[in-house]
Amino acid sequence: MKLYDGGRAPNPRRVRVFLAEKGIEVPLVPVDMGALAHKSDEVTARNPLQRLPILELDDGTVLTETVAICRYFEELYPEPALFGSDALGKARVEMWQRRMEFHLLMPVAQAFRHIHPAMKEWEVPQVAAWGEANKPKAVDFLRLLDEHLADSEFAVGDSLSIADITGMIAIDFMKPARIELPGELANVRRWYAAMKARPSADA
Amino acid sequence: MKLYDGGRAPNPRRVRVFLAEKGIEVPLVPVDMGALAHKSDEVTARNPLQRLPILELDDGTVLTETVAICRYFEELYPEPALFGSDALGKARVEMWQRRMEFHLLMPVAQAFRHIHPAMKEWEVPQVAAWGEANKPKAVDFLRLLDEHLADSEFAVGDSLSIADITGMIAIDFMKPARIELPGELANVRRWYAAMKARPSADA
Repeated sequence: MKLYDGGRAPNPRRVRVFLAEKGIEVPLVPVDMGALAHKSDEVTARNPLQRLPILELDDGTVLTETVAICRYFEELYPEPALFGSDALGKARVEMWQRRMEFHLLMPVAQAFRHIHPAMKEWEVPQVAAWGEANKPKAVDFLRLLDEHLADSEFAVGDSLSIADITGMIAIDFMKPARIELPGELANVRRWYAAMKARPSADA
Repeated sequence: MKLYDGGRAPNPRRVRVFLAEKGIEVPLVPVDMGALAHKSDEVTARNPLQRLPILELDDGTVLTETVAICRYFEELYPEPALFGSDALGKARVEMWQRRMEFHLLMPVAQAFRHIHPAMKEWEVPQVAAWGEANKPKAVDFLRLLDEHLADSEFAVGDSLSIADITGMIAIDFMKPARIELPGELANVRRWYAAMKARPSADA
């Protein structure tokens, strides 16, 4: 198998961090998104939505969507469980994973895509007012997350899950999106620092 | 357990259709979203994000996020499998489920929330230009879906999955969002008609 990878972009990175936590190595095919290579024929033939990452299996089967690729590896290599263990645990990971996506990663991504000049060819049309409207959404969620993390080591209990990976990458993405992490969110800062200290954060 | 339900809104309906396909009955607590009752203390105490549906277990444990609630029931009652069966099947369901969410349900919801006058108190600020930008996104995805459904009965092979439920509900939601389903998309129309003919569509 091989993984079409998109470098620093958040979704390709989510998969690489996930694989690092699992201890799985997959050959990477680098795609230069800065040069819009994700719109090439090679990528489009595999994903008409022109998004990365893309996993191609040895028989040519293609999987797209970050979380679908992660789930495939979770099924093949269940340990360590990054999608939860029992029914309630799996549901809680799904709940926090989606909260991190819909209320943090997405608002941050929208702010970046609709405001940053470098995104002009990516997001057509750029709607600056919509980008700005997303900044307080991200910060509001971080306040809620801070309360949650007051008595939880990770997003779900005392085990790392894909929800933490999504959260860490969303916070990293706040820098180019020019959203500041409020200084008073001590629990988020503790959790984020612990995530950044893991070797997987460099993947 | 009990399910805080939001009537006609797409996400509460996704869970009800999912439960109907599973043959599971859960007591509903109706929440009048038209009267903004999802912002009540009762709902906010259970989900500070003030979103529905919410599942409350008998011990008071709360699960939010549509797909997390569905996944909990899938774990408790695996048959019929609506999240796929083997590793590749589960990954393909996740892939199409997310495509249906990110490239269809979300653009439709954004068009509705940012343009419809009734959403003025829901989506603050309404950014009409962003709403309009989403209409062609939804239609572009439907063209891709039409090609996919040319040789696939359901979103993933010949079994119904949560991806089909999300897709059907997204297309239903196009009506209030004032997005038209292009007449020439014969495969989407065939699949959508089959979905609407299932008893679960009335849930």
